[in-house]
Amino acid sequence: MAPPVVTLTTDFGLRDPYVAAMKGVLRAGCPGLTVDDLSHAIPPQDLRAAALFLEAAIPCYPPGTIHLVVVDPGVGGSRRPMAVRLPDGSLLVGPDNGVLSLAWGRAPECREITHPDLPRRPCSNTFHGRDLFAPAAARLAGGFDFSALGPPIGDPCRIVLPQPRGGPGEATGEIIHLDHFGNAVSNLPAAWAGPAAQVRVRGLDLPIHATYSAVPVGAPLALAGSTARIEVAVREGDAGRVLGLRVGEEIAIITNNGI
Amino acid sequence: MAPPVVTLTTDFGLRDPYVAAMKGVLRAGCPGLTVDDLSHAIPPQDLRAAALFLEAAIPCYPPGTIHLVVVDPGVGGSRRPMAVRLPDGSLLVGPDNGVLSLAWGRAPECREITHPDLPRRPCSNTFHGRDLFAPAAARLAGGFDFSALGPPIGDPCRIVLPQPRGGPGEATGEIIHLDHFGNAVSNLPAAWAGPAAQVRVRGLDLPIHATYSAVPVGAPLALAGSTARIEVAVREGDAGRVLGLRVGEEIAIITNNGI
Amino acid sequence: MAPPVVTLTTDFGLRDPYVAAMKGVLRAGCPGLTVDDLSHAIPPQDLRAAALFLEAAIPCYPPGTIHLVVVDPGVGGSRRPMAVRLPDGSLLVGPDNGVLSLAWGRAPECREITHPDLPRRPCSNTFHGRDLFAPAAARLAGGFDFSALGPPIGDPCRIVLPQPRGGPGEATGEIIHLDHFGNAVSNLPAAWAGPAAQVRVRGLDLPIHATYSAVPVGAPLALAGSTARIEVAVREGDAGRVLGLRVGEEIAIITNNGI
Repeated sequence: MAPPVVTLTTDFGLRDPYVAAMKGVLRAGCPGLTVDDLSHAIPPQDLRAAALFLEAAIPCYPPGTIHLVVVDPGVGGSRRPMAVRLPDGSLLVGPDNGVLSLAWGRAPECREITHPDLPRRPCSNTFHGRDLFAPAAARLAGGFDFSALGPPIGDPCRIVLPQPRGGPGEATGEIIHLDHFGNAVSNLPAAWAGPAAQVRVRGLDLPIHATYSAVPVGAPLALAGSTARIEVAVREGDAGRVLGLRVGEEIAIITNNGI
Repeated sequence: MAPPVVTLTTDFGLRDPYVAAMKGVLRAGCPGLTVDDLSHAIPPQDLRAAALFLEAAIPCYPPGTIHLVVVDPGVGGSRRPMAVRLPDGSLLVGPDNGVLSLAWGRAPECREITHPDLPRRPCSNTFHGRDLFAPAAARLAGGFDFSALGPPIGDPCRIVLPQPRGGPGEATGEIIHLDHFGNAVSNLPAAWAGPAAQVRVRGLDLPIHATYSAVPVGAPLALAGSTARIEVAVREGDAGRVLGLRVGEEIAIITNNGI
Repeated sequence: MAPPVVTLTTDFGLRDPYVAAMKGVLRAGCPGLTVDDLSHAIPPQDLRAAALFLEAAIPCYPPGTIHLVVVDPGVGGSRRPMAVRLPDGSLLVGPDNGVLSLAWGRAPECREITHPDLPRRPCSNTFHGRDLFAPAAARLAGGFDFSALGPPIGDPCRIVLPQPRGGPGEATGEIIHLDHFGNAVSNLPAAWAGPAAQVRVRGLDLPIHATYSAVPVGAPLALAGSTARIEVAVREGDAGRVLGLRVGEEIAIITNNGI
């Protein structure tokens, strides 16, 4: 059988030894596992960015994967350490601060991590990634019983994304993410854009195309992004910079019926 | 037998979920494989930088490795998805836009990826890394027959590097890459620098040494770089910044025979 | 038996093919091994930063791990290539320039790497990571005898950290690292901070708390960091930026006994 896969997502960056320490703890706790770096470039302490990241990434992984997530501004305080079991048997391990909440379904099975055997000794107050979450993930990878982690959590924290107003054909939302290429991802469902629809942003009305190559290099367009949300892009360019877009900026779907 | 190795090279950066999604698709498609991140820091949509990167990296890998490359400004347009088989059995998977072309030999065996079973459903128009290339690489890792991918491509796109003029002892070329340390890599073959040769750049005549330590800390020099091209460096410094060098800048090998 | 783990720490960044080339050489030299990236974001040629990184990371890894480290400003010069065996059987491979010295104990077993079978042919003068260190690490992973690498080194280079003055309750030290979050790590042992102690830095007297959450968001504090040194932080903020702290800055433990 292939060894279990543990993925790692943090806001730690890579200049410091924090990610390396967590990997060492995983290796020490469960020899032979496969560790995938997902990202250590989540903006520091940005729970929403991390939650959106995981929402897109985790469904691509096969059942049974263990996703270890440490974006943890409340470390050492009252926020609960948590693990979540998804219907396909995948596990999420991280702080109960909402960061995991866009990656689970309607009825997540959540447990607080309280079992006294799990933390490293001594367990610091500032680095639960190394001292609590990585040890717990390694034990789970080695077969530790999910139900034995600790008591159920009935009210896990949730990230609430801003909701678009309107519906198919006419809707107003906002930019929720600017990606590495400068593409501006909105909270508008791509399914709301009918055949005659356009996107209005910063006073510009943009056509909605199927691919970047439908417009000339350097021209702006809208399209259905890879997570089924409306995105604004500039072909082979940086829409965020060229159009001056920011997270939170208003964006609308409009439909001109032959006018 | 060791599981196959799949390497991953993209211009995606790591703030967004794009690399993570591709890794998940690889894991789902071929349990047990080994995935090596080569780089996700290729400058966005810079085909030449990516091609030079791969030219240096791929020959270090053992036969049979699968190299998955996504630098793909033409995604969703008319550029063909492609796989290439090298004489040692290694496979390259990526867009037919030239990005792979410095890593293959004189007679690459190229096929378009058209087999209908390979893409994820639904297949987006904006993210073939996740929806087409990663699934194809995972299937190839699992033993899918290269010849069944699709029809041969006889005219694959090629990146053409600027060619130096001249030859041994006297030649003019240009800077083609500035690396992370500020070393300026030229297109001049190190073999063209005879024993009495110097390098002229920005009006400076620099000695050609075997090692950085041949000059004092902070001093400029030329030397044969790790890919057998002439490089300009500053010992324990940043030659790009100190000398003001840029990609495209003229650089020459000159030989003063005792004058 | 699980394949050996080789970790990789460099100052190479990821835009260039240097890390990829090293990974390829490891894969070619020892099929089936596990490779963990620790960091490629060590500041260029910063031996002290790298040594501090390894001091924190390596002890988290299990016995028998092979740690390959290339921060090597003296490549090709007179500095010796080295391997070190730790009491737990872990191996360190890298240049004898001090970079490994905070990760070993009092009596490291050091050997120069001189065995003629180890380097790649041809071996460059500028890239021993690819041509000497990675081949040596791959051979060691494959069972090559440590004692056969070359002659013992009795006087390995050591990094000497600035030492704090004073002792428990009253001490003066300096900031030795600013991390990704802006936390300022000092060389003051956390054990020197008694119950009534405060930390003085930049004219501010800061309380020492157990967790970030002991102060309001945006407020500065001191605490025992994850490597048992006193750190200065701003809750959910960047202490380096907010307080204007720099590496080398003076920092003190003071104790006001009821005054």
